[in-house]
Amino acid sequence: MRVALGLSYDGAAYDGWQSQPSGRTVQDRLEHALGRFANERITTNCAGRTDAGVHGLMQVVHFDTQAQRTPYAWVRGTNTHLPPDIAVQWAHPVPVEFHSRASATSRRYAYVLLQSPVRPSVEARRVGWVFQPLDLDAMQAALPHLLGERDFTSFRAAACQALSPIKNLMRVEISRRGTRAGAEAPETCYWRFEFEASAFLHHMIRNIMGCLIVIGQGKKPPEWMAEVVAARSRDAAAPTFMPDGLYFLGPRYDAHWGLPDRTPAFDWLP
Amino acid sequence: MRVALGLSYDGAAYDGWQSQPSGRTVQDRLEHALGRFANERITTNCAGRTDAGVHGLMQVVHFDTQAQRTPYAWVRGTNTHLPPDIAVQWAHPVPVEFHSRASATSRRYAYVLLQSPVRPSVEARRVGWVFQPLDLDAMQAALPHLLGERDFTSFRAAACQALSPIKNLMRVEISRRGTRAGAEAPETCYWRFEFEASAFLHHMIRNIMGCLIVIGQGKKPPEWMAEVVAARSRDAAAPTFMPDGLYFLGPRYDAHWGLPDRTPAFDWLP
Repeated sequence: MRVALGLSYDGAAYDGWQSQPSGRTVQDRLEHALGRFANERITTNCAGRTDAGVHGLMQVVHFDTQAQRTPYAWVRGTNTHLPPDIAVQWAHPVPVEFHSRASATSRRYAYVLLQSPVRPSVEARRVGWVFQPLDLDAMQAALPHLLGERDFTSFRAAACQALSPIKNLMRVEISRRGTRAGAEAPETCYWRFEFEASAFLHHMIRNIMGCLIVIGQGKKPPEWMAEVVAARSRDAAAPTFMPDGLYFLGPRYDAHWGLPDRTPAFDWLP
Repeated sequence: MRVALGLSYDGAAYDGWQSQPSGRTVQDRLEHALGRFANERITTNCAGRTDAGVHGLMQVVHFDTQAQRTPYAWVRGTNTHLPPDIAVQWAHPVPVEFHSRASATSRRYAYVLLQSPVRPSVEARRVGWVFQPLDLDAMQAALPHLLGERDFTSFRAAACQALSPIKNLMRVEISRRGTRAGAEAPETCYWRFEFEASAFLHHMIRNIMGCLIVIGQGKKPPEWMAEVVAARSRDAAAPTFMPDGLYFLGPRYDAHWGLPDRTPAFDWLP
């Protein structure tokens, strides 16, 4: 039978999603745990590979197995064998036509950024950081140059394995999360960027973030984003921004697969 | 001169606040960083010692030094020598009559708890965890037995160094943070407990949390809390609850000291 799983993880301690000889990846830990619970070797496919240090709020994977278990048993049993910073949230039987990557109609990511003269501490490895104030209007003005179906070669890492650099970036939302009271300077705040696309190229969001920050700091005008896109060259864009604040919110699927359509809302900060 | 500092840290990687031969404590890291920046040996006093695994949102310390630095230089210069999960937020010169512990009029802590059949993952080591639903009304009904000036011996760890077990617990607030959508079960949510007291005994909040949870799960009635307090015996209370979800929000001082009266509001979750 084929089973789909929803999975959350703190990526800070891992060398990314994809299995590597080091074994220090989320996929390695998940397949080890599934194998222990199912008493057979299990290989998984995921909806979106995450880089080293990137977090997953609702990664979705699928796998084929001979083991007969209830959905809740897959959750509890697999979690017993996973490290504390990875946990299966739900399990669901799916038809063999379902594929966690190929069936996904879009993916959503969020990037969280601390703007402060003081670097992160409690939130270290969980937010990006800029110490200069960002201009929301300038960043917003750059977005029309990114949205829609485009060739995103300028934001594509050399190692990218995607068949095509043409993706549909459906939505980018930028919001400022008030002032972080208690900090040294009044300009301290958090920024949240949410991206939704048909699919993303390797490093695409971190490369877009690098460009948006350059524009937000006033070092380039919003129209520069159009030049970067048109160049179709990685050299035209800003350096790849740090992975720390990047969260994979999860894929979307057609309702007929019957999967839980839930992005977890973590609301645990004091 | 005497200097006061406000400090934030993620306690997950440290053996608590207080200096130990291991050197793996927040105080050891801070004094090392101050010493490097000031070019002299500096010893610090803090407003509230935190246990291993407990986090600090606005710990306040003071120290005496011959070094002449601006407040902003103390912040930037010390942070250069601190690990990524500890950062000074502000610095302020204070008169020698100021003492971070003795001058504090109260301390505030928050405890954050995940209620879910699935254990924490993204929030591992940052929240406590219960898998059975808690009853808010029952926990609220227990609070009057705790509030006010009392002998808190029943919640005091054997190692506690406080001169007196009598403290004034001024305020306890319990709130439920909605449903955590995306989880397997609808009863999933976060709870936040905020405590303010003149001072706290060693393990006092974790021992009170253990009792509140027993009452919230219906294993004991709210009135049991009165029995526990009256017993003045550690044996009467529930086991010490896990440190993971405990955050020191910071001390309060009289306004005449001129210190920043700011609890940082971390709002960085995607």
